[in-house]
Amino acid sequence: LSAGYARAADPLPSWNEGAAKAAILDYVARVTTPGGPGFVAEADRIAVFDNDGTLWPENPVPFQIAYVVDELKRRAASEAAIAGDPMVKALFAGDMQTLMAGPQHAGLLHLIALTHAGMTVDDFRARVEDWMKTAKHPRFGVGYDKLTYQPMQEVLSLLRAHGFRTYIVSGGGADFMRVWSERVYGVPPAQVVGSTARVKYELRDTGPVLVKTMDSIEVDDKAGKPAGIHEFIGARPIFAFGNSDGDKEMLEYTTIANPLPSLGLLVHHTDAVREYQYDVNPKSSGTLVEALKEAPARGWVVVSMKDDWKTVFAPFPPQ
Amino acid sequence: LSAGYARAADPLPSWNEGAAKAAILDYVARVTTPGGPGFVAEADRIAVFDNDGTLWPENPVPFQIAYVVDELKRRAASEAAIAGDPMVKALFAGDMQTLMAGPQHAGLLHLIALTHAGMTVDDFRARVEDWMKTAKHPRFGVGYDKLTYQPMQEVLSLLRAHGFRTYIVSGGGADFMRVWSERVYGVPPAQVVGSTARVKYELRDTGPVLVKTMDSIEVDDKAGKPAGIHEFIGARPIFAFGNSDGDKEMLEYTTIANPLPSLGLLVHHTDAVREYQYDVNPKSSGTLVEALKEAPARGWVVVSMKDDWKTVFAPFPPQ
Repeated sequence: LSAGYARAADPLPSWNEGAAKAAILDYVARVTTPGGPGFVAEADRIAVFDNDGTLWPENPVPFQIAYVVDELKRRAASEAAIAGDPMVKALFAGDMQTLMAGPQHAGLLHLIALTHAGMTVDDFRARVEDWMKTAKHPRFGVGYDKLTYQPMQEVLSLLRAHGFRTYIVSGGGADFMRVWSERVYGVPPAQVVGSTARVKYELRDTGPVLVKTMDSIEVDDKAGKPAGIHEFIGARPIFAFGNSDGDKEMLEYTTIANPLPSLGLLVHHTDAVREYQYDVNPKSSGTLVEALKEAPARGWVVVSMKDDWKTVFAPFPPQ
Repeated sequence: LSAGYARAADPLPSWNEGAAKAAILDYVARVTTPGGPGFVAEADRIAVFDNDGTLWPENPVPFQIAYVVDELKRRAASEAAIAGDPMVKALFAGDMQTLMAGPQHAGLLHLIALTHAGMTVDDFRARVEDWMKTAKHPRFGVGYDKLTYQPMQEVLSLLRAHGFRTYIVSGGGADFMRVWSERVYGVPPAQVVGSTARVKYELRDTGPVLVKTMDSIEVDDKAGKPAGIHEFIGARPIFAFGNSDGDKEMLEYTTIANPLPSLGLLVHHTDAVREYQYDVNPKSSGTLVEALKEAPARGWVVVSMKDDWKTVFAPFPPQ
């Protein structure tokens, strides 16, 4: 089946020839060949992708954490309450022990509340857009939205060209990701499943607004991923791509005892030269131990960034 | 503009000629005429519809409540714990005072928990499907899914034919509605926004399951509707159709200070002969007082079922 693709233009040119590329191409051909034994109706072609570490890096910290830090620095310059906040001071002093203390990481949660709650969703969106235009990744020196993985962009495009609906299912905030998901990945806001908290409706003199709160937080990670998929999509995916133990349950939900043919994949960060190398002890998020252990028995495809990807980052400007 | 439609096949044949029909046709023509002053890009054409009382009746009780009653009767025959439950007994005795006591209506909530939690989402779906196949509406004597409003089916079709995405935004349970929303309204599960509670992921010997709970209940009614729209769709609608005060905030959110041309509409139940007549004091749900009062100032179109609808129910079998 891969040979058939090779004769046409290669839809995954940034992937080296090998088992991972062949598994993706063979699977897509199988479920989209009318009359074939693995054919899946278009309405059931749901593909879910983790974001941080799967579609773009999560180092040195997940990009939403970089937003928290940058936003607090920006505001500390003019807001005394921010500059004087003990947890903000701990952050600026690099005192992670204070921030992460307690089972709920109350310090970190407080910093997230300062930057993610108490403003309208429109104001939050404007702030994130401004940040994305100016912030630069500390190692690669370009805007964070210019660091998407080219091989993953090709997989997104391949699936869409074959009638799949592609969803992001990430522990990141839904409101944060929806600001740029369509522009950066071609994934519209309604196909972004992320962590959420309640918004509060108010009818003001200027019109209706939704104010972000920290109430009823639902974290879309680990067992929260299948729950979020059910709540938002209302159907079981047939294709899931992740990179960490936080994606294990999403891959299980997609591939185990699914009546439809399914495929689960994991990006393994094996490339310290071009990107990062980690699994057991990542510097921030992205632990990959349990899911890697489950992979062979489950038939999940482990993608080695170093060996399977010809190119890592998508070209910018887009070509 | 209506004249243009009249020359072609009438897309709203079950609507009598009048202000309501003209408002819908004129609005759709305006936002979909390329180069016209009110043109809206297809990606922004989001239409939201309440369900109970807007797309089908909510009398003598909302159909999901009929499901609760029927399901408890069915189970009471073989399950002693159900038959002996004090709140189930109160229900069967018609003792609504006991069921509705307390600010949280603890009795009613308990009955909902008995029929909506503690089972997997697959088991719940199978039960609702079975019920829908056999249950009959007490007045009309047909299955509940055969009672959709033909004029509203025509509006759904008209909007879809003009590039709108049509969503249901209802206080009903998302899991309940998603069982039949696609078959009955052509609205796929991912376009159903409803009340939700958390589901719990478990990997069992037979495969992954999601168990329904009563945790983190989010009621998609009143101010919960704009919140649910934001959380699930992530964008503001331009077209909203409701029928009760529970839809007021959804219509406000859609029509007030919206930078895009918008339209809000309310079904007014004025037809005791063909359906039901109620607004101030409905027998069950569906109070329409505040939204009706706001309507003129907001420019919301009030649709009189008696005067504006030539036909009420959609033909069955479909024609």
